[in-house]
Amino acid sequence: MNTAFRHEIVHICKQTGARCGLLHTPSGTVPTPIFMPVGTQASVKTLAHDEIKEVSDNLILANTYHLWLQPGTEIVKQHGSVKEFMNWDGLMLTDSGGFQVFSLSSLRKITEAGVEFRHHLSGELLHLSPEESIAIQNDLGADIIMSFDECAPFFSDYEYMSASVERTIRWAKRGQETHKKPEKQALFGVVQGGPHLDLRRHCLEELMKMDFPGYALGGLSVGESKTEMYKVLQAMNPELPFDKPRYLMGVGSPDDILYGVLNGIDMFDCVLPTRIARHGSAMTTSGKVVIKNKEYEADMSPLDPECECHVCQTYTRSYLRHLFKAGEILGLRLISYHNLFFLKRLMHDIRQAIMDDRYGDFAASFMERFYKRTFHQKDGSTRSV
Amino acid sequence: MNTAFRHEIVHICKQTGARCGLLHTPSGTVPTPIFMPVGTQASVKTLAHDEIKEVSDNLILANTYHLWLQPGTEIVKQHGSVKEFMNWDGLMLTDSGGFQVFSLSSLRKITEAGVEFRHHLSGELLHLSPEESIAIQNDLGADIIMSFDECAPFFSDYEYMSASVERTIRWAKRGQETHKKPEKQALFGVVQGGPHLDLRRHCLEELMKMDFPGYALGGLSVGESKTEMYKVLQAMNPELPFDKPRYLMGVGSPDDILYGVLNGIDMFDCVLPTRIARHGSAMTTSGKVVIKNKEYEADMSPLDPECECHVCQTYTRSYLRHLFKAGEILGLRLISYHNLFFLKRLMHDIRQAIMDDRYGDFAASFMERFYKRTFHQKDGSTRSV
Repeated sequence: MNTAFRHEIVHICKQTGARCGLLHTPSGTVPTPIFMPVGTQASVKTLAHDEIKEVSDNLILANTYHLWLQPGTEIVKQHGSVKEFMNWDGLMLTDSGGFQVFSLSSLRKITEAGVEFRHHLSGELLHLSPEESIAIQNDLGADIIMSFDECAPFFSDYEYMSASVERTIRWAKRGQETHKKPEKQALFGVVQGGPHLDLRRHCLEELMKMDFPGYALGGLSVGESKTEMYKVLQAMNPELPFDKPRYLMGVGSPDDILYGVLNGIDMFDCVLPTRIARHGSAMTTSGKVVIKNKEYEADMSPLDPECECHVCQTYTRSYLRHLFKAGEILGLRLISYHNLFFLKRLMHDIRQAIMDDRYGDFAASFMERFYKRTFHQKDGSTRSV
Repeated sequence: MNTAFRHEIVHICKQTGARCGLLHTPSGTVPTPIFMPVGTQASVKTLAHDEIKEVSDNLILANTYHLWLQPGTEIVKQHGSVKEFMNWDGLMLTDSGGFQVFSLSSLRKITEAGVEFRHHLSGELLHLSPEESIAIQNDLGADIIMSFDECAPFFSDYEYMSASVERTIRWAKRGQETHKKPEKQALFGVVQGGPHLDLRRHCLEELMKMDFPGYALGGLSVGESKTEMYKVLQAMNPELPFDKPRYLMGVGSPDDILYGVLNGIDMFDCVLPTRIARHGSAMTTSGKVVIKNKEYEADMSPLDPECECHVCQTYTRSYLRHLFKAGEILGLRLISYHNLFFLKRLMHDIRQAIMDDRYGDFAASFMERFYKRTFHQKDGSTRSV
């Protein structure tokens, strides 16, 4: 067992039951709830390592599938790990590659051994198994690594989902047994089961028998409605082991983060802030700003007047709009930076509100300003104000 | 007359006659010879304002044609000037727009009044005259502005070039007369004439009668051979007024800079360092490195082991190659930064070599390492070693 890896719950909000804590790892400690910027190909898109430091809480994610294919584990290993490869001295989590196999590749053939599939670009025939995924993640050298699971479509029929969950459980066991560096890399289990709460509970129970140092909810934010996702979050909250970190994979819109935190989630990741930035969408205190819009042509105010990031301290909306109209890369870069900074600030404010026992008030006030919607703590549903 | 604008010659190299100095302007002083990074659309491609500071000698260029079309002078004026618009607190030069009218647009009609042409993207019918160019540049607010000239093709026939040069002279006069801020913005004259030295000399003589605070050589580096360009540089060197700054427009390859400095040029600009960077070409002490090449796949050394820039201090060639293979924007950004830093360093070394009366030795040694060629001071010609 890895004792250096530990999640310390620091406070439970008296108003909501939301939690905040400290995730201790052999490489350092980060606060929870935490949002992890995504460095898919060992690069948080457009940003240099010192900027990633400024816009993160020192824990970022990289994608095993992409790095396995380019540059390959051999090149990464020569640098030491993905962290050294991209000159990142903070903490890192890698996913298992499973999600990309199921979402990007074609001609998948799933067997008990693993998955056979075609490279999403070259068409090359490839194979990934629980053992291979863990071996690759051992080589990539992140601080937290993930079990190789089958990310079945949310609305698979019950029979298929049930069989898929059983396979995911067996794969988790095989991955755990093959894991070479449990003292250095914390391996998390991934709970699957789509909308079927009994399958989710069964999956979690079996994974808990293996005593993983952390648990993720997988197969969510894959096209189902928010209500459907929130139902799973609400149902799993009391079931997940209290003291272990809980990671909601692929989730990163402010409303989903707020509802996730309300339901005991500690970790989030999503490409959303950098992806929408590259299309010119900025997250601001008073809601989304689509910077290309004509209304910002002569707008001399900062992107977000309440934001302390260097983009908001430096440039006008008018200049940012010009960069997008002129097709300048600097525009993508500046809004990517701002959006991640915005989420870092949101996570900071969330943690502070939990510490102050006013997380419900905070979430409601954020929702009203950002989405102009009210926040329903019971089911996460929203309505126009 | 603008007395705050002055070029102070600090030293003449005893070995070569090359000069170095200080260009004093109302906004500050910069060293010469100087290379000006190009911020075409109020952005030095991929770089933020603090990085531009690090990779320049505090004087950059922006393009009047592009800024006039997007975002337009009204938006820029609301910010104060292009400098405030892009948050650049250093010095700036704008060109006249003439070169872009002649190189980018179609269906040009040149009259004594000015040029009628089609927008290079929208096809819209537009008009630019010497008076309009200066008025736009007055609004853009750079420290150094340029006369609106006709940049006739280098190999125009003598008769056409002669008429064109006369027009350029008349246009320079009209521009000077309409210039509203001579105390704040130094207006340079532009010497045209293609390869015809008598036309060049005549053009310069007429411009000198107007007593411009600086003179540029235009219509070079537009497709003619290096030998042809060098002949013009060599012939114009003794003709240009000694104490005024001399600007060789659109030139920025190391060999051309070296030969330009040998022939008394004080200022250079070119998109080359950032353009080749976006294709993965880096300038290094030992020559060009095409980072996508297979040979760099597992190369753990810095891009340029002798370079002190943060890219070379931080990342391996292997990682940089990966960024390009993976299509990551960070790759373009890092090599753009490095290439400009490399040229800044080159200019620093050039100035130091002039101060030390060993500019000929320096240029020869640089040429040998960078191009594996010898440097012929007499005609700039090179041969393989």
